[in-house]
Amino acid sequence: MNQVTLDNTLPIAIGAGILGTGGGGSTYLNRLRLNNELKQRGGPVAIIQADDVPDDALVCAVGGMGAPTVSNEKLQEGQEIKRAIRALEEHLRRKIYAIVIGEIGGGNALGPMITALQCDLPVVDGDGMGRAFPELDMDTFMIYGVAPAPFALADSHGNVAIFQRIDSARQAEAFARSLTIEMGGSAALVMPVMTGVELKATLIRDTLSLAKRIGDAVLKCRARSMEPAETVAALCNGKVLFSGKIIDVERRTVQGFARGKLIISAFTSQHPPNALGIPPSVRRGDRGGNSRGVLEIEFQNENLIARRNGAIVCAVPDLITLVTLDEGEPIGTESLRYGLRVAVLALPAPKELKTPAALAVVGPRAFGYDVDYAPLPGDLL
Amino acid sequence: MNQVTLDNTLPIAIGAGILGTGGGGSTYLNRLRLNNELKQRGGPVAIIQADDVPDDALVCAVGGMGAPTVSNEKLQEGQEIKRAIRALEEHLRRKIYAIVIGEIGGGNALGPMITALQCDLPVVDGDGMGRAFPELDMDTFMIYGVAPAPFALADSHGNVAIFQRIDSARQAEAFARSLTIEMGGSAALVMPVMTGVELKATLIRDTLSLAKRIGDAVLKCRARSMEPAETVAALCNGKVLFSGKIIDVERRTVQGFARGKLIISAFTSQHPPNALGIPPSVRRGDRGGNSRGVLEIEFQNENLIARRNGAIVCAVPDLITLVTLDEGEPIGTESLRYGLRVAVLALPAPKELKTPAALAVVGPRAFGYDVDYAPLPGDLL
Repeated sequence: MNQVTLDNTLPIAIGAGILGTGGGGSTYLNRLRLNNELKQRGGPVAIIQADDVPDDALVCAVGGMGAPTVSNEKLQEGQEIKRAIRALEEHLRRKIYAIVIGEIGGGNALGPMITALQCDLPVVDGDGMGRAFPELDMDTFMIYGVAPAPFALADSHGNVAIFQRIDSARQAEAFARSLTIEMGGSAALVMPVMTGVELKATLIRDTLSLAKRIGDAVLKCRARSMEPAETVAALCNGKVLFSGKIIDVERRTVQGFARGKLIISAFTSQHPPNALGIPPSVRRGDRGGNSRGVLEIEFQNENLIARRNGAIVCAVPDLITLVTLDEGEPIGTESLRYGLRVAVLALPAPKELKTPAALAVVGPRAFGYDVDYAPLPGDLL
Repeated sequence: MNQVTLDNTLPIAIGAGILGTGGGGSTYLNRLRLNNELKQRGGPVAIIQADDVPDDALVCAVGGMGAPTVSNEKLQEGQEIKRAIRALEEHLRRKIYAIVIGEIGGGNALGPMITALQCDLPVVDGDGMGRAFPELDMDTFMIYGVAPAPFALADSHGNVAIFQRIDSARQAEAFARSLTIEMGGSAALVMPVMTGVELKATLIRDTLSLAKRIGDAVLKCRARSMEPAETVAALCNGKVLFSGKIIDVERRTVQGFARGKLIISAFTSQHPPNALGIPPSVRRGDRGGNSRGVLEIEFQNENLIARRNGAIVCAVPDLITLVTLDEGEPIGTESLRYGLRVAVLALPAPKELKTPAALAVVGPRAFGYDVDYAPLPGDLL
């Protein structure tokens, strides 16, 4: 893929939503904004490879910070990230060569392309998470040694803060989180700034292309009236963990995060998956008998851990994504509600997230769960 | 006064404590630090007048932000403000010509002289408050139009944030407060950066000299075993509002502030002011019969409003300061405790704080009290 046009924002948005594991912000809103920007500029977003970036050039990752429950209602002014980039360029007296996607999950996959159009810069195919994560230090750039400072945070009122010296990525997260809350719960983040050398050493490559492939597969299923979950799982070497109906959602926005849990109950012949008249037995057969009892998922912006009848069946950094059963439409944690009929995908995380160094930052224990990470069955790491 | 040496840090500390109205941080700690710096450098702090600053030169005000309850226990690393100044100089590609005292009240009068020695810069005689205030937008610089950005906040771990664009002084206060809390409840602030022209138009002049005069007067009283309160009141055109014993203190550190109230009960012949054997009638006579009943004072880092038997007798921006009865030693709101025998001074605020523009920011209503500001009796404004 060497460009993004109006023709492929839909599959990218669907794929990014699936990689978003419930977070990363709304793909719907950011796709509207991206389409609008593409129409106004009349040109595509240029996509380049990490190897196209000169070793000594500077690039920066960009994204939105905050709870999706907030950013869906408190809309961006639109130029926040561009202002933050300009502030950093001025501060460093260096020009930015290309835009990097901070997290490929959710709307944060699309936002950087809007910024790229505004700044007339290309976007690198890849990202720092291969999914979405709730905290800003949870990316491969910083896990593998890129310095967190300087970074910039901007709000919709024109306010811009540059963190000039920060002693750790955790500290950057704490400062940026408290400022994001003060900025209203959602802010634009430019972080980290890095050289071409650093980018090539730390980027999870080709994830924008992956998002598009996933979205293309979903759209093809829709065109054929097939449920897309199994197809997506196969494409990503994962599996359909469960399918059923959401019977409980507990969600609150605390300390700048959307936190909570949900319970999905398996379909039974008394409670068929939908009203289209397809016999439940056929549908259940398709899912390999996975769906009995209930599945419980806990989230912090993103889905973190899934338990079936009490036993952990998938945990962070592996991806847990809910999609609507019929359309394969990804469901953000801010959109969960009683009665939705869903398939739950379990997809193996990129290998860059499963090293000991990465698991220390994004493994189950980093989120307070007293368990070691165990790869999904069949995942070769 | 054209320099500060080891010989005059004590009177300045006492005077600054009295102008601090209970806040501005510990003069004790900052005087130890200043004395230490003076000994190490072997030279005095050069004091200049606002008119000595070239119109196009840049100066910056500096101080500590946070609750004194915190900064008394969480000590500074020592180079925070210097690091913040260097970061701003680098950001602006301009050198700072002189250091300005952000608030003359409390330890914040002394901290800037430490920074001046570290940076080898002079200090301007004057400040932006003529006292201490709890919030950073409450200074004459910003009240009279100096832009809040860029400003810098730094902590003791080497972290430095530069706020590059900020749309209002209130917004600056909100952002800096939340970051200060995240930095542990106390931080170093460099704000605002201004030109010589702006400084001359907005500075409250000669307040460092005033602090020294107040402190000299207190020390002279002590040498003669006289209670200093009346002398200080006369020197500042104020009065002794009350004297008595603290019988109740309610204090909590909330949202980064030390908030609370205290009650002082007047001395009676059954409860004489001290154990020195001086007849209570003589002492009460000295105070002009002011002290009957109880005085209640509410504070937010600084003392804000005093009520005698329910009626307001002094309100912000006028200064309400507690000093020990015998020594005239100022008492910070973090050091209030049951049983202290105190005199309460009411001193008129500088005229720069009593204009309509200033009262909108530092008058009683700005602190949530539903009363208009009324000058102290005899204050000619």
